[in-house]
Amino acid sequence: MAVYTEVPDEALGAFLAEYDIGGLLSYKGIAEGVENTNFFLHTTGGHFILTLYEKRVAEADLPFFLGLMEHLAARGLACPQPIRTRAGTALGRLCGRPAVIVSFLDGVSVRRPGVRHCRALGSALAGLHAAGADFALRRPNALSVEAWRPLFSAAEAEADRVAPNLAERTRQDLASLEAGWPRDLPGGVIHADLFTDNVFFIGDRVSGLIDFYFACTDAFAYDLAICLNAWCFEADGSFNRTKGQAMIAAYETLRPLEPAEVAALPVLCRGAALRFMLTRLVDWLNVPPGALVKPKDPLEYDRKLAFHRRVNEAAEYGWSG
Amino acid sequence: MAVYTEVPDEALGAFLAEYDIGGLLSYKGIAEGVENTNFFLHTTGGHFILTLYEKRVAEADLPFFLGLMEHLAARGLACPQPIRTRAGTALGRLCGRPAVIVSFLDGVSVRRPGVRHCRALGSALAGLHAAGADFALRRPNALSVEAWRPLFSAAEAEADRVAPNLAERTRQDLASLEAGWPRDLPGGVIHADLFTDNVFFIGDRVSGLIDFYFACTDAFAYDLAICLNAWCFEADGSFNRTKGQAMIAAYETLRPLEPAEVAALPVLCRGAALRFMLTRLVDWLNVPPGALVKPKDPLEYDRKLAFHRRVNEAAEYGWSG
Repeated sequence: MAVYTEVPDEALGAFLAEYDIGGLLSYKGIAEGVENTNFFLHTTGGHFILTLYEKRVAEADLPFFLGLMEHLAARGLACPQPIRTRAGTALGRLCGRPAVIVSFLDGVSVRRPGVRHCRALGSALAGLHAAGADFALRRPNALSVEAWRPLFSAAEAEADRVAPNLAERTRQDLASLEAGWPRDLPGGVIHADLFTDNVFFIGDRVSGLIDFYFACTDAFAYDLAICLNAWCFEADGSFNRTKGQAMIAAYETLRPLEPAEVAALPVLCRGAALRFMLTRLVDWLNVPPGALVKPKDPLEYDRKLAFHRRVNEAAEYGWSG
Repeated sequence: MAVYTEVPDEALGAFLAEYDIGGLLSYKGIAEGVENTNFFLHTTGGHFILTLYEKRVAEADLPFFLGLMEHLAARGLACPQPIRTRAGTALGRLCGRPAVIVSFLDGVSVRRPGVRHCRALGSALAGLHAAGADFALRRPNALSVEAWRPLFSAAEAEADRVAPNLAERTRQDLASLEAGWPRDLPGGVIHADLFTDNVFFIGDRVSGLIDFYFACTDAFAYDLAICLNAWCFEADGSFNRTKGQAMIAAYETLRPLEPAEVAALPVLCRGAALRFMLTRLVDWLNVPPGALVKPKDPLEYDRKLAFHRRVNEAAEYGWSG
């Protein structure tokens, strides 16, 4: 949570002069966003978010992310909509960083989602997959199964410092997932990081999906597996099948899963858990001195992996056909 | 710049239920505020700032600060106005911290104030002093001349690590200021920390004064001396007399300085500079490991002190009678 780049008022004023969103009334750095610097922006034209992309986001990917948000917003999905300058460009530069202004979305992230939130999320996820169906650009998932072994190599030697036998467990997961990873599932644009902090609610209604900076082209059911991991485990580490059932059933109201997806759900859930365990493990072992961001606990996903290893079929996640 | 306390959505929802400001639409932690945690808060009733007081603000002082903001806002000063609960209290508790909701003020802090900003600030400062005249509560200035020697004691042994001969210079300043500090100047409520980041502008107009957590009862001209220090020096360390002249003249349009205040201005400016040099020096030498806030440079005020030591009369700050 940090503002990595300070933006002086003069620089912002000059930047805003390119846009048709009125005069500056206020802006405040937001203590959110691990990868980027975000400002809450109020102009005579409304409320916006100003994002400066820091070095962890590849500039070459920005046309995909911004184009996707425009595409989704145009189809009625509640997501940040990039604002274009009078010259027609969405991506600008501010204080030496790529920068963009997007529409502000109301809503609150739910820290402890209930069954009703999981149900609403299932619908929203299916809506996202449908809205992205005719998006022309493609971006491979840079954090899918091929990426896990190189990630693990960066952490293998020190993994057992984090938890006993973590290295050996991970070697077995890797071998198993690499051998059995499904390749031909229905796919398209997925969010790939739809944790609770990226979903806004007003009451029980999803009012916005944000942070599309891991979005990519991959299997739809893998996105669902990421959400089952992120939303349906309890604080004590147990999987709440009622929540899983609500999420999957709501998803299937808009897009029923195909038999191959149902069959693959356990391996997809295990793979999704391994992906987040690995990136967290690497971050955990490489906290830079003076870091402004506290790393997330890789062992939360080590515990989820223990559950997934014992799962045999989609019904254990709440799928009821 | 930091959010020291995370506020879960459930806790905030319960807190807001005590107020008559409508339903929660969104809240975001603001990466501002060295002492407190601040959230931008949007409800169906409007925009607000939610502040949680962290340990550096003494809870016993909060009735003074909140009462003062209510008093000033009631007299038309553009400052945050504490919102009262249905039960009539302004000060609540949230996540174990004293907490308050205040009105949101538009406006932008000017990093490099021009002459016109200094003029506007002079008027706003005189307006603040007038609006506070009939405020009943009193709070001694805990960072006035009596506090400087104890502050220096905490830093004296290591001061020369920060700049050569800083300790000796400071001993001489302390002796001189303690001997010559003026005692009977006109006074009342002063802001005591009116740096550029605590003043909002929309265009050339002051749209808000914020952060009253150093406000106290002291000499009005000392507040002016703090502002001359904070607003009228250039990046190269030189004092800009045109800016000083604009600030003082605008102040005097509402409240002409008395002869004793004019005579005391050089010593007040030197004292104000010493106060900020000392608190910054102590913070500089005591940065806790993992600190989220970068300490401010004490040497900026060491350089200002060098200027003040050579000043003989108020005219050198731009006073023209």
